[in-house]
Amino acid sequence: MAKPKVVAVNLNPALDLTGNLPLLEPGTVNLISTSTLHPAGKGVNVARVLAELGAAVTVTGLLGTENQDPFCELFAQFGIEDAFVRVPGSSRINVKLVEASGRVSDINFPGVVVTEDDVAAMAQKLFELAEQHEVFVMAGSLPVGLRPETCAQWIKDLKSLGKKVLFDSSNDALKAGVLASPWLVKPNDEELSALCGKALDTQPQLRAAAERLHRQDIRNVVVSLGAAGVMWLDESGWLQSQPPKMTVVSTVGAGDTLVAGLCWGALNDWNKQETLTFATALSALAVTQVGVGVPDAAVLQQTLESVQILNEMPVGQNVNVE
Amino acid sequence: MAKPKVVAVNLNPALDLTGNLPLLEPGTVNLISTSTLHPAGKGVNVARVLAELGAAVTVTGLLGTENQDPFCELFAQFGIEDAFVRVPGSSRINVKLVEASGRVSDINFPGVVVTEDDVAAMAQKLFELAEQHEVFVMAGSLPVGLRPETCAQWIKDLKSLGKKVLFDSSNDALKAGVLASPWLVKPNDEELSALCGKALDTQPQLRAAAERLHRQDIRNVVVSLGAAGVMWLDESGWLQSQPPKMTVVSTVGAGDTLVAGLCWGALNDWNKQETLTFATALSALAVTQVGVGVPDAAVLQQTLESVQILNEMPVGQNVNVE
Repeated sequence: MAKPKVVAVNLNPALDLTGNLPLLEPGTVNLISTSTLHPAGKGVNVARVLAELGAAVTVTGLLGTENQDPFCELFAQFGIEDAFVRVPGSSRINVKLVEASGRVSDINFPGVVVTEDDVAAMAQKLFELAEQHEVFVMAGSLPVGLRPETCAQWIKDLKSLGKKVLFDSSNDALKAGVLASPWLVKPNDEELSALCGKALDTQPQLRAAAERLHRQDIRNVVVSLGAAGVMWLDESGWLQSQPPKMTVVSTVGAGDTLVAGLCWGALNDWNKQETLTFATALSALAVTQVGVGVPDAAVLQQTLESVQILNEMPVGQNVNVE
Repeated sequence: MAKPKVVAVNLNPALDLTGNLPLLEPGTVNLISTSTLHPAGKGVNVARVLAELGAAVTVTGLLGTENQDPFCELFAQFGIEDAFVRVPGSSRINVKLVEASGRVSDINFPGVVVTEDDVAAMAQKLFELAEQHEVFVMAGSLPVGLRPETCAQWIKDLKSLGKKVLFDSSNDALKAGVLASPWLVKPNDEELSALCGKALDTQPQLRAAAERLHRQDIRNVVVSLGAAGVMWLDESGWLQSQPPKMTVVSTVGAGDTLVAGLCWGALNDWNKQETLTFATALSALAVTQVGVGVPDAAVLQQTLESVQILNEMPVGQNVNVE
């Protein structure tokens, strides 16, 4: 059987440069003992997980030419088709300094600044890819020079071509994107709160906010709650999962893994319960490692069996936060 | 006339990632407002300056594949022939965080770890290049996995093939390298002190240390003293230069520029006074800018005319520090 095809869109990819040191002392020369440099960005993470699961993945977005090598190596390693539009300069570098105490300092460098021509080239590339693809995952933040409204218009355009767009972003990009009614959104509790402009502290509050999005023609609203699991609203109502308790090494990439799992279910036409169970297990396993990556089948099977699917909640019984 | 040919050897190249931020606060997320990423390493700096001066430069060394793009772009931009041996992993990244107060924090990441095979490939490459080149500049530190004695042996081997080797390093690499009696060494006052294992606080002390190196068959010993100028000992004795007073923007790369200037004199068979004047002026101008680069001819000419060459000092009249 042919591999299911998908496009992962990462408009603002980043490199994570992580270094360990005894103590960060500002104003001095600090020597890093061990370090890693690896490609990051939500769309790139999603692409990698989907490729490992067995999808034929094409990745696109806007990639700085000055530090593209680690991306190219990752794509080659996982057989991901590279359709990134190249722009001059360096993609974002997020330096993470981990001290012996465990304290982490983040130093986030700015990425490329894209021009109107770059944005036009990106649009062109998306429409080229739409000729051969039905499913798009658009994940992550936007570079300087790309307006949230432009990104939202792309979602709208893809939707009008009959494509499924899974959208995972935050802040202004999320705010604009939801107005374009993508096929699926996956905010976590904090992102959903920020979108609503108020703290949503309880599950009924979060569900009410999600129901509002659903009424705005977003077919699937998935809210991730970390260790508390995942809530998924679609036209059939709510379904909620509870992962087993995991030993957390790093939660970085867990949300991206959840999105990849949801997408994998969609690509395979799995039913809702099957998809939610799978995506929850995959995401739960992601926190037991640094970065993203699909565990071996035996470990995955064991975790799948430990995911609980809770009783469906009725829609419209939740606190209205509007 | 054909361009003079030279090989610049940078065994441990680095990327400088410089970011500006209001205040570095450990344990938090710090956002960088503006940043630059550019190739560094003494040999790469020397290569760039020599290429700008008009030499046919081939650059070699051990370059990590994961972050080689900025190097490749620089080499393409300046028409430098890239003969780097590729090794897996990332070359060193030196993060420089500049706060609004002007305080700078350096965070130096480790570079590649080279294997015996990499070292063998490097040796092979040097001997290939020796077939077509007479002048080598070997500048900078050594990666983990490359012993100072190996580097010293390469200098010895090149010397025995009749090549001129200009050597600029520090610490253990300098200590081992001087035993191989390169054609020229260029320690600064601190590096010469470290080499002697004691603080050399006066010019007579520094000269005595340099004379000891000269007696060990190092034909040219050049000691750089920052704003105080340059002292050069060869078989004709001492010659000293005093640059004009400059407005310092950054002293990074000034020593490398001096080495490039000395090499340019050697490539053109200039006399000692001519070479020292030129190299001193070029290096003085380097402190007025960020990074290295050759200024326009008018500015250079003006500075050349402002360099003073001091009376020659007799050899052997200096305090013996042995």
